[in-house]
Amino acid sequence: VDIVFLIFDRITALDAVGPYEVLSRLPGARVTFCSPNGPGTVRTDNEFLGLVADQNMASVTAAEILVVPGGFGTRALMADRAVLDWVCSVDASSRWTTSVCTGSLILGAAGLLNGRPATTHWTAMDTLAGTGAHPTRQRVVRSDKYVTAAGVSAGIDMALLLAAWDAGDDVAQAVQLAIEYDPQPPFDAGSPDKAPPEIVARVRGQ
Amino acid sequence: VDIVFLIFDRITALDAVGPYEVLSRLPGARVTFCSPNGPGTVRTDNEFLGLVADQNMASVTAAEILVVPGGFGTRALMADRAVLDWVCSVDASSRWTTSVCTGSLILGAAGLLNGRPATTHWTAMDTLAGTGAHPTRQRVVRSDKYVTAAGVSAGIDMALLLAAWDAGDDVAQAVQLAIEYDPQPPFDAGSPDKAPPEIVARVRGQ
Repeated sequence: VDIVFLIFDRITALDAVGPYEVLSRLPGARVTFCSPNGPGTVRTDNEFLGLVADQNMASVTAAEILVVPGGFGTRALMADRAVLDWVCSVDASSRWTTSVCTGSLILGAAGLLNGRPATTHWTAMDTLAGTGAHPTRQRVVRSDKYVTAAGVSAGIDMALLLAAWDAGDDVAQAVQLAIEYDPQPPFDAGSPDKAPPEIVARVRGQ
Repeated sequence: VDIVFLIFDRITALDAVGPYEVLSRLPGARVTFCSPNGPGTVRTDNEFLGLVADQNMASVTAAEILVVPGGFGTRALMADRAVLDWVCSVDASSRWTTSVCTGSLILGAAGLLNGRPATTHWTAMDTLAGTGAHPTRQRVVRSDKYVTAAGVSAGIDMALLLAAWDAGDDVAQAVQLAIEYDPQPPFDAGSPDKAPPEIVARVRGQ
């Protein structure tokens, strides 16, 4: 299965690496990281980490699974015609077109989520609505072949669902066990419905 | 807070990027990725992704939080005297010395876990015992300043605990909310105690 990640400057690393760690373990997986300015390195949100795009996006013409991660860099890409055209051209023959966190803003700006339920980071729901999508507060939202995940860490859950849908429950369970995904968060603060109100206000203001 | 990640060829990407996504959000965080052969790129287990080490490990002499991720590449490093000496020298002044997955094999080979409870990926418990550590089947194991996490995704839980211990519960909760860590795994197969026996056998045989 050919899996393609679009990466870019000011990406959130876990948005890409969470799904990557799951999907790269599918039988026969071939994973390509490409970027608008690649081949070369992109830097994460806070610039502390570089991820390598082995390809320029222009040299990647198809994907069975396309993953568009999020990060502050998505805002510039929402107005980048070359990126939006590329996303549409890969989407034309993809089996799954997916996003994590604010990656859905790029799918939305490309017109792919128009009229569809979709999700994003909880702080970006209004921006997502502006693209014509119907923001939906679930961790993973599927609309036909379009699958969008909520913020950052939700990409792991999305990728396990994709693994099950694409390769079967037994494959997905084997991957989950291989990455020992038996989460035990120390707090129940991972969504704005659950975190203390003062914590929600603090994060919203960042 | 100065946070240092040791990265290397055949690393498991999520082992590093899970804790990175949490710890890089601590107030005043400065994160450095270094490698035995850096500066330069290391490739992950399956070679599909490159991560950039901005520094050679030799140029990093101290860390408040040291994180040693895992991956198949750890086996070679367990016999690499330069790496083990470096880990010991950074450990000498660290506030926390930590590992994810088979990263604990490196801490163990360096002699840092001798007589201490520690954990690793569930398939590597015997190898960990060989270093003198006491393998302990918990997701995160703390022994004084030594904190080890179980396989791959456990690094996220470990890093949130570290965030709480080092910076306070409110900071940890804000980070958890920012990365929307409200896990909803589609299966309950993330540990060998929970996965179906045939899945456990399959993953053990890989």
